Amino acid sequence: MTQETPKSDAHSADNGVDANADDGRNERHRARMVRKKAVVDEKIEKAQRDCGVIVITTGNGKGKSSSGFGMVVRAMGHGMKTGVVQFIKGAIPTGEEKFLRRFPEECEFHVMGEGYTWETQDRTRDIAKAEAAWEQARRMLQDASFGLVLFDELNIALKLGYLDVNTVIADLQARPDMQHVVITGRGAPQALIDAAHTVTDMTPVKHAFADGIRAQPGVEM
Amino acid sequence: MTQETPKSDAHSADNGVDANADDGRNERHRARMVRKKAVVDEKIEKAQRDCGVIVITTGNGKGKSSSGFGMVVRAMGHGMKTGVVQFIKGAIPTGEEKFLRRFPEECEFHVMGEGYTWETQDRTRDIAKAEAAWEQARRMLQDASFGLVLFDELNIALKLGYLDVNTVIADLQARPDMQHVVITGRGAPQALIDAAHTVTDMTPVKHAFADGIRAQPGVEM
Repeated sequence: MTQETPKSDAHSADNGVDANADDGRNERHRARMVRKKAVVDEKIEKAQRDCGVIVITTGNGKGKSSSGFGMVVRAMGHGMKTGVVQFIKGAIPTGEEKFLRRFPEECEFHVMGEGYTWETQDRTRDIAKAEAAWEQARRMLQDASFGLVLFDELNIALKLGYLDVNTVIADLQARPDMQHVVITGRGAPQALIDAAHTVTDMTPVKHAFADGIRAQPGVEM
Repeated sequence: MTQETPKSDAHSADNGVDANADDGRNERHRARMVRKKAVVDEKIEKAQRDCGVIVITTGNGKGKSSSGFGMVVRAMGHGMKTGVVQFIKGAIPTGEEKFLRRFPEECEFHVMGEGYTWETQDRTRDIAKAEAAWEQARRMLQDASFGLVLFDELNIALKLGYLDVNTVIADLQARPDMQHVVITGRGAPQALIDAAHTVTDMTPVKHAFADGIRAQPGVEM
Protein backbone atom coordinates (compact mmCIF):
# COMPACT_ATOMS: atom_id res chain seq x y z
CA MET A 1 0.00 0.00 0.00
CA THR A 2 1.32 3.41 -0.88
CA GLN A 3 -0.49 6.58 -0.03
CA GLU A 4 0.59 10.09 -0.78
CA THR A 5 0.13 13.60 0.50
CA PRO A 6 -1.22 16.36 -1.74
CA LYS A 7 2.31 17.62 -2.23
CA SER A 8 3.34 14.26 -3.61
CA ASP A 9 0.33 13.82 -5.87
CA ALA A 10 0.89 17.13 -7.52
CA HIS A 11 4.58 16.69 -8.15
CA SER A 12 4.53 13.05 -9.08
CA ALA A 13 1.95 13.79 -11.76
CA ASP A 14 4.64 15.85 -13.44
CA ASN A 15 6.69 12.88 -14.61
CA GLY A 16 5.58 13.33 -18.19
CA VAL A 17 7.13 16.76 -18.61
CA ASP A 18 9.67 16.99 -21.42
CA ALA A 19 12.34 19.30 -20.08
CA ASN A 20 13.56 20.19 -23.59
CA ALA A 21 10.33 21.30 -25.23
CA ASP A 22 9.82 25.03 -25.43
CA ASP A 23 6.95 25.73 -27.84
CA GLY A 24 3.91 26.68 -25.83
CA ARG A 25 5.53 25.15 -22.78
CA ASN A 26 4.67 27.94 -20.42
CA GLU A 27 1.02 27.81 -21.40
CA ARG A 28 0.85 24.02 -21.12
CA HIS A 29 2.60 24.29 -17.77
CA ARG A 30 0.07 26.82 -16.58
CA ALA A 31 -2.87 24.69 -17.73
CA ARG A 32 -1.39 21.62 -16.05
CA MET A 33 -0.82 23.53 -12.82
CA VAL A 34 -4.41 24.81 -12.86
CA ARG A 35 -5.64 21.20 -13.10
CA LYS A 36 -3.27 20.11 -10.37
CA LYS A 37 -4.33 22.88 -8.09
CA ALA A 38 -7.95 21.71 -8.46
CA VAL A 39 -6.95 18.14 -7.55
CA VAL A 40 -4.84 19.26 -4.61
CA ASP A 41 -7.47 21.68 -3.37
CA GLU A 42 -10.13 18.95 -3.48
CA LYS A 43 -7.94 16.56 -1.50
CA ILE A 44 -7.12 19.24 1.03
CA GLU A 45 -10.81 19.97 1.42
CA LYS A 46 -11.45 16.32 2.25
CA ALA A 47 -8.73 16.24 4.91
CA GLN A 48 -9.85 18.74 7.52
CA ARG A 49 -9.59 16.78 10.72
CA ASP A 50 -6.98 17.68 13.34
CA CYS A 51 -5.61 15.15 15.77
CA GLY A 52 -2.43 14.07 17.40
CA VAL A 53 -0.71 11.66 15.03
CA ILE A 54 1.60 8.71 15.56
CA VAL A 55 4.44 8.78 13.04
CA ILE A 56 6.83 5.85 12.59
CA THR A 57 10.10 5.95 10.67
CA THR A 58 11.52 2.49 10.15
CA GLY A 59 13.56 0.50 7.61
CA ASN A 60 17.28 0.04 7.06
CA GLY A 61 18.09 3.38 5.43
CA LYS A 62 19.64 6.57 6.77
CA GLY A 63 17.20 9.24 7.99
CA LYS A 64 14.98 7.70 10.66
CA SER A 65 16.28 9.48 13.75
CA SER A 66 17.23 12.64 11.88
CA SER A 67 13.65 12.90 10.60
CA GLY A 68 12.41 12.57 14.17
CA PHE A 69 14.70 15.37 15.32
CA GLY A 70 13.58 17.51 12.39
CA MET A 71 10.00 17.17 13.63
CA VAL A 72 11.09 18.10 17.15
CA VAL A 73 12.55 21.41 15.96
CA ARG A 74 9.58 21.99 13.67
CA ALA A 75 7.30 21.64 16.71
CA MET A 76 9.58 23.95 18.72
CA GLY A 77 9.24 26.47 15.89
CA HIS A 78 5.49 26.45 16.49
CA GLY A 79 6.01 27.06 20.21
CA MET A 80 5.18 23.50 21.24
CA LYS A 81 6.89 21.87 24.21
CA THR A 82 8.67 18.71 23.12
CA GLY A 83 10.10 15.63 24.76
CA VAL A 84 12.75 13.17 23.61
CA VAL A 85 13.55 9.74 24.99
CA GLN A 86 16.44 7.98 23.29
CA PHE A 87 16.34 4.21 23.69
CA ILE A 88 19.34 1.94 23.12
CA LYS A 89 21.83 4.70 22.36
CA GLY A 90 23.61 6.51 25.10
CA ALA A 91 27.36 5.94 25.25
CA ILE A 92 28.38 8.91 23.07
CA PRO A 93 26.71 12.34 23.23
CA THR A 94 25.30 13.09 19.78
CA GLY A 95 24.93 16.38 17.96
CA GLU A 96 21.18 16.33 18.48
CA GLU A 97 21.61 15.85 22.22
CA LYS A 98 24.20 18.63 22.53
CA PHE A 99 21.96 20.95 20.56
CA LEU A 100 18.62 20.24 22.19
CA ARG A 101 19.99 20.37 25.74
CA ARG A 102 20.44 24.10 25.15
CA PHE A 103 16.65 24.50 25.40
CA PRO A 104 15.54 22.70 28.57
CA GLU A 105 12.28 24.69 28.73
CA GLU A 106 11.35 23.74 25.18
CA CYS A 107 12.67 20.20 24.96
CA GLU A 108 12.95 17.67 27.77
CA PHE A 109 15.72 15.32 26.71
CA HIS A 110 16.40 11.87 28.17
CA VAL A 111 19.04 9.42 27.04
CA MET A 112 18.61 5.97 28.47
CA GLY A 113 20.80 2.94 28.22
CA GLU A 114 24.53 2.71 27.90
CA GLY A 115 25.18 2.27 24.24
CA TYR A 116 24.29 -0.34 21.68
CA THR A 117 23.25 -3.72 22.91
CA TRP A 118 26.26 -5.40 21.32
CA GLU A 119 28.47 -3.14 23.41
CA THR A 120 26.82 -3.82 26.77
CA GLN A 121 26.29 -7.57 26.12
CA ASP A 122 24.05 -7.77 29.18
CA ARG A 123 20.41 -8.44 28.39
CA THR A 124 19.04 -8.14 31.94
CA ARG A 125 20.62 -4.73 32.32
CA ASP A 126 19.41 -3.63 28.87
CA ILE A 127 15.84 -4.60 29.80
CA ALA A 128 15.98 -2.66 33.06
CA LYS A 129 17.24 0.39 31.17
CA ALA A 130 14.52 0.07 28.53
CA GLU A 131 11.85 -0.19 31.21
CA ALA A 132 13.17 2.91 32.95
CA ALA A 133 13.17 4.72 29.62
CA TRP A 134 9.57 3.70 29.00
CA GLU A 135 8.61 5.13 32.40
CA GLN A 136 9.85 8.51 31.17
CA ALA A 137 8.00 8.05 27.90
CA ARG A 138 4.75 7.12 29.68
CA ARG A 139 4.99 10.19 31.90
CA MET A 140 5.19 12.37 28.77
CA LEU A 141 2.25 10.52 27.23
CA GLN A 142 0.21 11.41 30.31
CA ASP A 143 1.12 15.11 30.14
CA ALA A 144 -0.82 17.27 27.68
CA SER A 145 1.76 20.05 27.98
CA PHE A 146 3.95 18.05 25.57
CA GLY A 147 2.86 18.83 22.01
CA LEU A 148 5.23 16.40 20.33
CA VAL A 149 7.33 13.60 21.79
CA LEU A 150 10.03 11.54 20.09
CA PHE A 151 10.87 8.01 21.17
CA ASP A 152 14.09 7.45 19.30
CA GLU A 153 15.06 3.83 18.55
CA LEU A 154 12.05 2.52 20.46
CA ASN A 155 11.44 0.04 17.63
CA ILE A 156 14.73 -1.67 18.40
CA ALA A 157 13.85 -2.06 22.07
CA LEU A 158 10.54 -3.65 20.99
CA LYS A 159 12.17 -5.89 18.43
CA LEU A 160 14.68 -7.18 20.96
CA GLY A 161 11.80 -7.98 23.31
CA TYR A 162 12.98 -5.47 25.93
CA LEU A 163 9.50 -3.93 26.12
CA ASP A 164 6.02 -5.34 25.56
CA VAL A 165 4.44 -3.93 22.41
CA ASN A 166 0.88 -4.17 23.77
CA THR A 167 1.78 -2.11 26.83
CA VAL A 168 3.45 0.47 24.60
CA ILE A 169 0.41 0.69 22.29
CA ALA A 170 -2.00 1.00 25.23
CA ASP A 171 0.03 3.89 26.64
CA LEU A 172 0.19 5.55 23.21
CA GLN A 173 -3.56 5.29 22.71
CA ALA A 174 -4.28 6.80 26.14
CA ARG A 175 -2.31 9.98 25.32
CA PRO A 176 -3.86 13.48 25.00
CA ASP A 177 -5.90 13.96 21.80
CA MET A 178 -3.63 16.54 20.19
CA GLN A 179 -0.26 15.09 21.18
CA HIS A 180 1.99 13.92 18.34
CA VAL A 181 4.33 10.96 18.81
CA VAL A 182 7.27 10.07 16.59
CA ILE A 183 8.81 6.60 16.93
CA THR A 184 12.00 5.64 15.11
CA GLY A 185 14.15 2.58 14.58
CA ARG A 186 14.42 -0.33 12.21
CA GLY A 187 12.10 -3.29 12.54
CA ALA A 188 8.89 -1.59 13.74
CA PRO A 189 6.50 -4.35 14.90
CA GLN A 190 3.39 -4.78 12.73
CA ALA A 191 1.07 -4.08 15.69
CA LEU A 192 2.72 -0.69 16.14
CA ILE A 193 2.46 0.05 12.41
CA ASP A 194 -1.24 -0.81 12.59
CA ALA A 195 -1.68 1.64 15.48
CA ALA A 196 0.13 4.50 13.68
CA HIS A 197 -1.20 7.17 11.30
CA THR A 198 1.90 7.76 9.18
CA VAL A 199 4.60 5.19 8.53
CA THR A 200 7.65 5.51 6.29
CA ASP A 201 10.05 2.73 5.39
CA MET A 202 13.43 4.35 4.84
CA THR A 203 14.87 2.20 2.12
CA PRO A 204 18.63 2.39 1.57
CA VAL A 205 19.71 3.05 -2.01
CA LYS A 206 23.34 3.52 -1.06
CA HIS A 207 25.42 4.49 1.97
CA ALA A 208 28.77 6.27 2.35
CA PHE A 209 29.85 3.64 4.88
CA ALA A 210 30.13 1.07 2.10
CA ASP A 211 32.71 3.35 0.45
CA GLY A 212 34.87 3.26 3.56
CA ILE A 213 33.64 6.61 4.87
CA ARG A 214 32.98 6.49 8.59
CA ALA A 215 30.04 8.09 10.41
CA GLN A 216 30.35 11.86 10.05
CA PRO A 217 29.43 14.28 12.86
CA GLY A 218 26.46 16.33 11.75
CA VAL A 219 25.26 13.64 9.38
CA GLU A 220 25.08 10.36 11.29
CA MET A 221 25.58 11.56 14.88
CA MET B 1 21.08 -2.48 -4.14
CA THR B 2 20.76 -2.15 -0.40
CA GLN B 3 23.66 -1.31 1.83
CA GLU B 4 23.65 -0.91 5.55
CA THR B 5 25.52 0.83 8.31
CA PRO B 6 27.09 -1.14 11.18
CA LYS B 7 24.13 -0.19 13.37
CA SER B 8 21.76 -1.81 10.94
CA ASP B 9 23.78 -4.97 10.41
CA ALA B 10 23.96 -5.66 14.09
CA HIS B 11 20.31 -5.10 14.82
CA SER B 12 18.89 -6.71 11.73
CA ALA B 13 20.79 -9.90 12.55
CA ASP B 14 18.61 -10.14 15.63
CA ASN B 15 15.50 -11.18 13.76
CA GLY B 16 15.74 -14.76 14.98
CA VAL B 17 15.29 -13.91 18.65
CA ASP B 18 12.34 -15.64 20.29
CA ALA B 19 10.97 -13.07 22.71
CA ASN B 20 9.27 -15.72 24.85
CA ALA B 21 12.17 -18.06 25.54
CA ASP B 22 13.83 -17.69 28.91
CA ASP B 23 16.06 -20.72 29.53
CA GLY B 24 19.65 -19.68 29.01
CA ARG B 25 18.46 -16.65 27.11
CA ASN B 26 20.76 -14.17 28.79
CA GLU B 27 23.80 -16.29 28.06
CA ARG B 28 22.80 -16.87 24.44
CA HIS B 29 22.15 -13.14 24.13
CA ARG B 30 25.58 -12.33 25.48
CA ALA B 31 27.28 -14.80 23.12
CA ARG B 32 25.36 -13.39 20.17
CA MET B 33 26.28 -9.84 21.11
CA VAL B 34 29.96 -10.78 21.42
CA ARG B 35 29.85 -12.14 17.85
CA LYS B 36 28.00 -9.07 16.63
CA LYS B 37 30.45 -6.75 18.26
CA ALA B 38 33.26 -8.47 16.39
CA VAL B 39 31.44 -8.03 13.07
CA VAL B 40 30.58 -4.41 13.77
CA ASP B 41 34.10 -3.61 15.00
CA GLU B 42 35.61 -5.12 11.85
CA LYS B 43 33.33 -3.06 9.62
CA ILE B 44 34.08 0.09 11.57
CA GLU B 45 37.79 -0.60 11.23
CA LYS B 46 37.41 -0.77 7.45
CA ALA B 47 35.57 2.55 7.29
CA GLN B 48 38.04 5.12 8.57
CA ARG B 49 37.97 7.77 5.89
CA ASP B 50 36.52 11.22 6.60
CA CYS B 51 35.06 13.39 3.88
CA GLY B 52 32.20 15.71 3.19
CA VAL B 53 29.28 13.58 2.08
CA ILE B 54 26.37 14.22 -0.22
CA VAL B 55 23.15 12.81 1.28
CA ILE B 56 19.92 12.58 -0.72
CA THR B 57 16.49 11.87 0.74
CA THR B 58 13.95 11.14 -1.94
CA GLY B 59 10.82 9.03 -2.55
CA ASN B 60 7.13 9.64 -1.88
CA GLY B 61 7.06 9.06 1.88
CA LYS B 62 7.02 11.46 4.82
CA GLY B 63 10.39 12.35 6.32
CA LYS B 64 12.60 13.79 3.58
CA SER B 65 12.74 17.43 4.66
CA SER B 66 12.42 16.65 8.36
CA SER B 67 15.46 14.37 8.07
CA GLY B 68 17.37 17.22 6.43
CA PHE B 69 16.47 19.58 9.26
CA GLY B 70 17.46 16.93 11.79
CA MET B 71 20.93 16.86 10.23
CA VAL B 72 21.11 20.66 10.34
CA VAL B 73 20.54 20.70 14.12
CA ARG B 74 22.87 17.74 14.56
CA ALA B 75 25.59 19.75 12.81
CA MET B 76 24.76 22.82 14.93
CA GLY B 77 25.17 20.60 17.99
CA HIS B 78 28.74 19.94 16.86
CA GLY B 79 29.37 23.67 16.48
CA MET B 80 29.25 23.64 12.69
CA LYS B 81 27.90 26.59 10.74
CA THR B 82 24.99 25.51 8.57
CA GLY B 83 23.09 26.88 5.60
CA VAL B 84 19.60 26.15 4.31
CA VAL B 85 18.09 27.01 0.95
CA GLN B 86 14.46 26.01 0.54
CA PHE B 87 13.43 25.57 -3.08
CA ILE B 88 9.81 25.53 -4.27
CA LYS B 89 8.25 26.20 -0.87
CA GLY B 90 7.92 29.67 0.46
CA ALA B 91 4.34 30.89 0.82
CA ILE B 92 3.80 29.83 4.43
CA PRO B 93 6.48 30.13 7.14
CA THR B 94 7.15 26.64 8.46
CA GLY B 95 8.09 25.52 11.95
CA GLU B 96 11.63 24.77 10.82
CA GLU B 97 12.01 28.28 9.41
CA LYS B 98 10.62 29.95 12.52
CA PHE B 99 12.93 27.88 14.69
CA LEU B 100 16.16 28.18 12.71
CA ARG B 101 15.83 31.93 12.15
CA ARG B 102 16.46 32.28 15.88
CA PHE B 103 20.12 31.37 15.23
CA PRO B 104 21.34 33.59 12.39
CA GLU B 105 24.98 33.08 13.37
CA GLU B 106 24.66 29.31 13.28
CA CYS B 107 22.26 28.82 10.41
CA GLU B 108 21.88 31.00 7.33
CA PHE B 109 18.33 30.42 6.14
CA HIS B 110 16.95 31.29 2.71
CA VAL B 111 13.48 30.60 1.42
CA MET B 112 13.10 31.07 -2.29
CA GLY B 113 10.05 30.91 -4.47
CA GLU B 114 6.50 31.79 -3.66
CA GLY B 115 4.85 28.52 -2.83
CA TYR B 116 4.18 25.34 -4.69
CA THR B 117 4.36 25.44 -8.43
CA TRP B 118 0.67 24.62 -8.78
CA GLU B 119 -0.12 27.73 -6.77
CA THR B 120 2.00 30.14 -8.79
CA GLN B 121 1.11 28.62 -12.19
CA ASP B 122 3.86 30.67 -13.80
CA ARG B 123 6.76 28.64 -15.11
CA THR B 124 8.98 31.54 -16.20
CA ARG B 125 8.74 33.11 -12.77
CA ASP B 126 9.37 29.75 -11.07
CA ILE B 127 12.54 29.26 -13.11
CA ALA B 128 13.84 32.72 -12.24
CA LYS B 129 13.21 32.00 -8.55
CA ALA B 130 14.94 28.61 -8.76
CA GLU B 131 17.96 30.18 -10.45
CA ALA B 132 18.18 32.85 -7.77
CA ALA B 133 17.95 30.11 -5.13
CA TRP B 134 20.78 28.19 -6.78
CA GLU B 135 22.95 31.32 -6.69
CA GLN B 136 22.59 31.28 -2.90
CA ALA B 137 23.34 27.55 -2.83
CA ARG B 138 26.44 27.98 -5.01
CA ARG B 139 27.76 30.73 -2.75
CA MET B 140 27.49 28.35 0.21
CA LEU B 141 29.21 25.58 -1.78
CA GLN B 142 32.14 27.96 -2.34
CA ASP B 143 32.47 28.86 1.34
CA ALA B 144 34.31 26.38 3.57
CA SER B 145 32.93 28.06 6.69
CA PHE B 146 29.69 26.13 6.08
CA GLY B 147 30.06 22.66 7.57
CA LEU B 148 26.69 21.37 6.38
CA VAL B 149 24.23 22.82 3.89
CA LEU B 150 20.68 21.70 3.17
CA PHE B 151 19.04 22.25 -0.21
CA ASP B 152 15.44 21.44 0.62
CA GLU B 153 13.20 20.32 -2.27
CA LEU B 154 16.01 20.85 -4.78
CA ASN B 155 15.08 17.53 -6.40
CA ILE B 156 11.70 18.96 -7.40
CA ALA B 157 13.29 22.00 -9.04
CA LEU B 158 15.52 19.61 -11.00
CA LYS B 159 12.67 17.30 -11.91
CA LEU B 160 10.59 20.19 -13.22
CA GLY B 161 13.53 21.28 -15.35
CA TYR B 162 13.93 24.59 -13.52
CA LEU B 163 17.66 23.95 -13.01
CA ASP B 164 20.25 22.04 -15.02
CA VAL B 165 21.38 18.90 -13.20
CA ASN B 166 24.87 18.97 -14.70
CA THR B 167 25.48 22.51 -13.46
CA VAL B 168 24.24 21.51 -10.02
CA ILE B 169 26.52 18.44 -9.90
CA ALA B 170 29.55 20.43 -11.06
CA ASP B 171 28.97 22.98 -8.29
CA LEU B 172 28.51 20.19 -5.72
CA GLN B 173 31.72 18.48 -6.75
CA ALA B 174 33.71 21.72 -6.52
CA ARG B 175 32.73 22.25 -2.86
CA PRO B 176 35.21 22.15 0.09
CA ASP B 177 36.44 18.63 0.95
CA MET B 178 34.78 18.41 4.35
CA GLN B 179 31.49 20.12 3.58
CA HIS B 180 28.36 17.98 3.87
CA VAL B 181 25.39 18.57 1.58
CA VAL B 182 21.86 17.27 2.14
CA ILE B 183 19.42 17.37 -0.78
CA THR B 184 15.75 16.52 -0.36
CA GLY B 185 12.67 16.11 -2.50
CA ARG B 186 10.90 13.41 -4.43
CA GLY B 187 12.14 12.35 -7.83
CA ALA B 188 15.91 12.78 -7.42
CA PRO B 189 17.50 12.53 -10.89
CA GLN B 190 19.68 9.44 -11.43
CA ALA B 191 22.75 11.56 -12.21
CA LEU B 192 22.45 13.21 -8.81
CA ILE B 193 21.99 9.82 -7.11
CA ASP B 194 25.15 8.63 -8.86
CA ALA B 195 27.05 11.66 -7.55
CA ALA B 196 25.88 11.16 -3.94
CA HIS B 197 27.36 9.08 -1.11
CA THR B 198 24.22 8.23 0.83
CA VAL B 199 20.75 7.98 -0.69
CA THR B 200 17.51 6.94 1.01
CA ASP B 201 14.21 6.31 -0.70
CA MET B 202 11.50 7.23 1.78
CA THR B 203 8.81 4.73 0.94
CA PRO B 204 5.30 5.47 2.20
CA VAL B 205 3.64 2.63 4.12
CA LYS B 206 0.70 4.79 5.16
CA HIS B 207 -0.14 8.45 5.71
CA ALA B 208 -2.53 10.23 8.06
CA PHE B 209 -3.75 12.39 5.18
CA ALA B 210 -5.52 9.38 3.68
CA ASP B 211 -7.55 9.14 6.91
CA GLY B 212 -8.78 12.70 6.46
CA ILE B 213 -6.25 14.21 8.87
CA ARG B 214 -4.78 17.43 7.49
CA ALA B 215 -1.13 18.48 7.74
CA GLN B 216 -0.28 19.03 11.40
CA PRO B 217 2.04 21.83 12.59
CA GLY B 218 5.15 20.25 14.08
CA VAL B 219 4.80 17.13 11.98
CA GLU B 220 4.35 18.18 8.35
CA MET B 221 5.18 21.88 8.53
